[in-house]
Amino acid sequence: MASTVDLNITSDFVLPSIVTGSLVDGSFFTFTGICALVSAQPPPNFKVTKASMAEFLTLNRQSVSLVVLQFPAVTTNPPHIHPRSVELLFLVDESLEVGFVDTTNKLFNQTLQAGDMFVFPKGLFHFQYNADAQKQAIAFSAFGSANAGTVSLPMTLFTTSIDDMILAKAFKTDVATIQALKAGLAPKPYSSIDLKEKERYKQLVS
Amino acid sequence: MASTVDLNITSDFVLPSIVTGSLVDGSFFTFTGICALVSAQPPPNFKVTKASMAEFLTLNRQSVSLVVLQFPAVTTNPPHIHPRSVELLFLVDESLEVGFVDTTNKLFNQTLQAGDMFVFPKGLFHFQYNADAQKQAIAFSAFGSANAGTVSLPMTLFTTSIDDMILAKAFKTDVATIQALKAGLAPKPYSSIDLKEKERYKQLVS
Amino acid sequence: MASTVDLNITSDFVLPSIVTGSLVDGSFFTFTGICALVSAQPPPNFKVTKASMAEFLTLNRQSVSLVVLQFPAVTTNPPHIHPRSVELLFLVDESLEVGFVDTTNKLFNQTLQAGDMFVFPKGLFHFQYNADAQKQAIAFSAFGSANAGTVSLPMTLFTTSIDDMILAKAFKTDVATIQALKAGLAPKPYSSIDLKEKERYKQLVS
Amino acid sequence: MASTVDLNITSDFVLPSIVTGSLVDGSFFTFTGICALVSAQPPPNFKVTKASMAEFLTLNRQSVSLVVLQFPAVTTNPPHIHPRSVELLFLVDESLEVGFVDTTNKLFNQTLQAGDMFVFPKGLFHFQYNADAQKQAIAFSAFGSANAGTVSLPMTLFTTSIDDMILAKAFKTDVATIQALKAGLAPKPYSSIDLKEKERYKQLVS
Amino acid sequence: MASTVDLNITSDFVLPSIVTGSLVDGSFFTFTGICALVSAQPPPNFKVTKASMAEFLTLNRQSVSLVVLQFPAVTTNPPHIHPRSVELLFLVDESLEVGFVDTTNKLFNQTLQAGDMFVFPKGLFHFQYNADAQKQAIAFSAFGSANAGTVSLPMTLFTTSIDDMILAKAFKTDVATIQALKAGLAPKPYSSIDLKEKERYKQLVS
Amino acid sequence: MASTVDLNITSDFVLPSIVTGSLVDGSFFTFTGICALVSAQPPPNFKVTKASMAEFLTLNRQSVSLVVLQFPAVTTNPPHIHPRSVELLFLVDESLEVGFVDTTNKLFNQTLQAGDMFVFPKGLFHFQYNADAQKQAIAFSAFGSANAGTVSLPMTLFTTSIDDMILAKAFKTDVATIQALKAGLAPKPYSSIDLKEKERYKQLVS
Repeated sequence: MASTVDLNITSDFVLPSIVTGSLVDGSFFTFTGICALVSAQPPPNFKVTKASMAEFLTLNRQSVSLVVLQFPAVTTNPPHIHPRSVELLFLVDESLEVGFVDTTNKLFNQTLQAGDMFVFPKGLFHFQYNADAQKQAIAFSAFGSANAGTVSLPMTLFTTSIDDMILAKAFKTDVATIQALKAGLAPKPYSSIDLKEKERYKQLVS
Repeated sequence: MASTVDLNITSDFVLPSIVTGSLVDGSFFTFTGICALVSAQPPPNFKVTKASMAEFLTLNRQSVSLVVLQFPAVTTNPPHIHPRSVELLFLVDESLEVGFVDTTNKLFNQTLQAGDMFVFPKGLFHFQYNADAQKQAIAFSAFGSANAGTVSLPMTLFTTSIDDMILAKAFKTDVATIQALKAGLAPKPYSSIDLKEKERYKQLVS
Repeated sequence: MASTVDLNITSDFVLPSIVTGSLVDGSFFTFTGICALVSAQPPPNFKVTKASMAEFLTLNRQSVSLVVLQFPAVTTNPPHIHPRSVELLFLVDESLEVGFVDTTNKLFNQTLQAGDMFVFPKGLFHFQYNADAQKQAIAFSAFGSANAGTVSLPMTLFTTSIDDMILAKAFKTDVATIQALKAGLAPKPYSSIDLKEKERYKQLVS
Repeated sequence: MASTVDLNITSDFVLPSIVTGSLVDGSFFTFTGICALVSAQPPPNFKVTKASMAEFLTLNRQSVSLVVLQFPAVTTNPPHIHPRSVELLFLVDESLEVGFVDTTNKLFNQTLQAGDMFVFPKGLFHFQYNADAQKQAIAFSAFGSANAGTVSLPMTLFTTSIDDMILAKAFKTDVATIQALKAGLAPKPYSSIDLKEKERYKQLVS
Repeated sequence: MASTVDLNITSDFVLPSIVTGSLVDGSFFTFTGICALVSAQPPPNFKVTKASMAEFLTLNRQSVSLVVLQFPAVTTNPPHIHPRSVELLFLVDESLEVGFVDTTNKLFNQTLQAGDMFVFPKGLFHFQYNADAQKQAIAFSAFGSANAGTVSLPMTLFTTSIDDMILAKAFKTDVATIQALKAGLAPKPYSSIDLKEKERYKQLVS
Repeated sequence: MASTVDLNITSDFVLPSIVTGSLVDGSFFTFTGICALVSAQPPPNFKVTKASMAEFLTLNRQSVSLVVLQFPAVTTNPPHIHPRSVELLFLVDESLEVGFVDTTNKLFNQTLQAGDMFVFPKGLFHFQYNADAQKQAIAFSAFGSANAGTVSLPMTLFTTSIDDMILAKAFKTDVATIQALKAGLAPKPYSSIDLKEKERYKQLVS
């Protein structure tokens, strides 16, 4: 994937290098990779569906992206950090426990109701949890980057073969506890890129 | 209100100058100015409800904002330009005719279905129209600025006392046509700032 | 045309990718595409001559450009918006009516005399009109982008096949008025890129 | 302290608002808060000494800062993330185990020798560990921000009263394990701002 | 003078803090500090007349400025560097010797004719010289910053009481040569801020 | 080498275009080009050893770099300007005379002791001089750019074939003095790129 800068551009938009401008029409600016959610069954686990630069190439250098977050009853989005963007979450359905910790180590948390928004500042640790025993919560989140990136803390800490002793020292615990935590966490599933969407772009540019 | 820059910040977030950090909690990061829409009746006319820096002070320097757009049957969001941001629109309900014109004067338009997204690049002219005779269309739009700004073209052109002759020359028409267009366009309604929300912040900082 | 970012660079300047640095001399930093104006007859219509990235490749990533504006008696630069830059106009000869409208829909206008400057903020609608019945007005404008871009409103609105009904609804008029306006506006003329200058660069890099 | 932006400035430097320029001399640009380390005894625990905007006000809007890191034998800098900057570490003495995890969850680690440098990209999780049983390791780190900020993961996760159940769910463990981890981690010590340096500035501006 | 950042802003323009928006009209966006040149006699020495943030407060955060340069016969603009901007020079009258040196120490020079433009990249050393024995050369220069700043090398090097020995060592010459150079260079004249213009703003905001 | 922008990126890091991500490991983020200094003899002349983008490709778009400065007794780093970055100098050993001149032509100088830091703002002229008759001074400097660039004033002014008369006029001296200064200054030595390090990357990418 091309690495690009996410600020002011000197053209209206950025075409993939081998596309000639005369072939581009409105469909290049349209993303259909999320609309399948409209008619789909609620997922059994927490699910994030992304429209960032990886899924929607047109966002290249446009400094914005969106995701849809679905929280079945009593599920959590694993605590994480977005290294390249603030997150502005809009809760569409039901309620959600959210919070972040700032760099002075102070926790800011809130119980959101449908229609509420919440700001998670750039690069700060945050969590989102649906405590309801029955209902699915749904949220949209906007980012000020085409590729906000995600550092998922349980995975980053305990599934990437960092030395047990370093972790034990860091968390002031013993190696056995670290190994138990590692054992409990499954390897990270394959990234959520919509392969069909990817295929659509390959065809567009070929 | 102080005018500020919309890029990287050197603090986690920006507090209004007279608020001391120790009094701030999760509610400062929560915006409740949109949740009234959840239980409200559909509006009779096109309506935009904003969560930008003016309504949600916490977005100051966070480079992101969101709006909710409600299009009753056969209504249009007046053609406009956002001088400070791209717009990423997510159509939640029904269908919508959208389009923008780039700086080579080429039109890119599309009919969106529920679940589709569309990108309107920064500073370019665009329109959104619900052609359906019966149903309300609903969309969310994300911006990569806390204050994208809006230049509403019918209003800007024909309700701001620009000299009739200049407009007639520019549009290659006669003064009578310009005057008829001016007569047809009502003065711009009061901006959509949620006054209650504004009040909440005043209390927070007093 | 390569799409590039318009901010700080990590080199002194940017060479076209196939030019080797050792072949570059002072002529690469010199633009001769405007000097023909010096000895030319005044144009019969409003004319803009540009030195932006398209005409003067060396400006790539340098975040600056210039244009020369010639207004014969009683002519106008069609109202427009620059999506990527402020404009700082310097009136060299005679007088000029200028103005812009901000995002609160307030008009700021002024009659400039030779030697005056005027600021048109980024992304805002503005116009320039020579009301004098006899004399040509001449101005230079500086931009803080190598490619400010221009959204020419009469053209964008009424020559790009946007649906008549959408425009009629937006301007609160009837389809017949829209069609009359469309008929009155000629198709946009070919962009002002100086083909000879373009040719010079082609030779330089071949 | 005012929150400020960390990019190009339009003045040579930024004076605190109540200082008049005529009183400023070379000492304003000099930071003496680190020189005490030169003659000090090696610390018993891992120690970071900062020269960022909080300690050295002159860095305001200059987009750079430095820290000195001292690792006694078999100590670790708790795993962390800098939300606003890359870190470029220069190992001055002895050896150091370092690593970071990217947003695809891949670990990049290395054993550094004296004189080596290592890059920790912005916003990514990283660790630094002196495995040597005897010797103190010393490093300098440079940041591309005057206030890089630190999210210290053990502290952020387990000392900020995030709900036990949310953490248990996130780490796929039980509440008892979370409570044991919380018990093991002391409350975060007071931030490392050199109070004397702070005092010096107060006097300078009074 | 307030120090400010020179990039994207989150408002249309920036008002001085004590001006209320309702009192601002087109004159706030107009600069009349240069128009006196139109009817003035040619100056006896090289003269630069600026429209930057110091003279024209409205440019605050607009990232653009302009100057007029007048070169009587056989005069030079002292070699200098702009620390915060590229310079795009447009030669209006007669001819001019120009050049800059890049960071690999290569000289790029050119003889410009009326109507030519030349780019001096940001932060690089450059010179401008009118070699003609009779005629005044006139140029306009545009900058991509509201306050480009000028480091005038003869003055900076030899009129600021830098230790003679340091300079002698740096220039690989003797102290006597340095002292002779210092003696030859007059103290820098008072900066070119148009005091009347400054007064106009004071009145505007009082 | 490609010229790139030095700000926010939309990926964790930037790989050279022909490297596939799966082959990259921790060594890509490690720079060993400075460690030879650790065991080397002190140099006979002033010496700068760089870890910027040219020597350490991984810094591409990371907006940070470091150099090591070695000042034998009674030597100077030739006065210079960094066009693309502030410099934050940390004096590790002995003492150093430093200073810079701002754009109002005011000198700010200081005698640093081991452990002191000093800020040289972006684009401003500065010098560093070890006045001690016996001891080597050593400093590290951090930059907020991966390629700060250096305009070395003695070299730029007097070794680049700028016309003698232009220089004589600018420095208000005679051509003979200029020619004597030119004679005294040797041609700039080959840039300090560590060729072995460069080779290492070539092998990495082949």
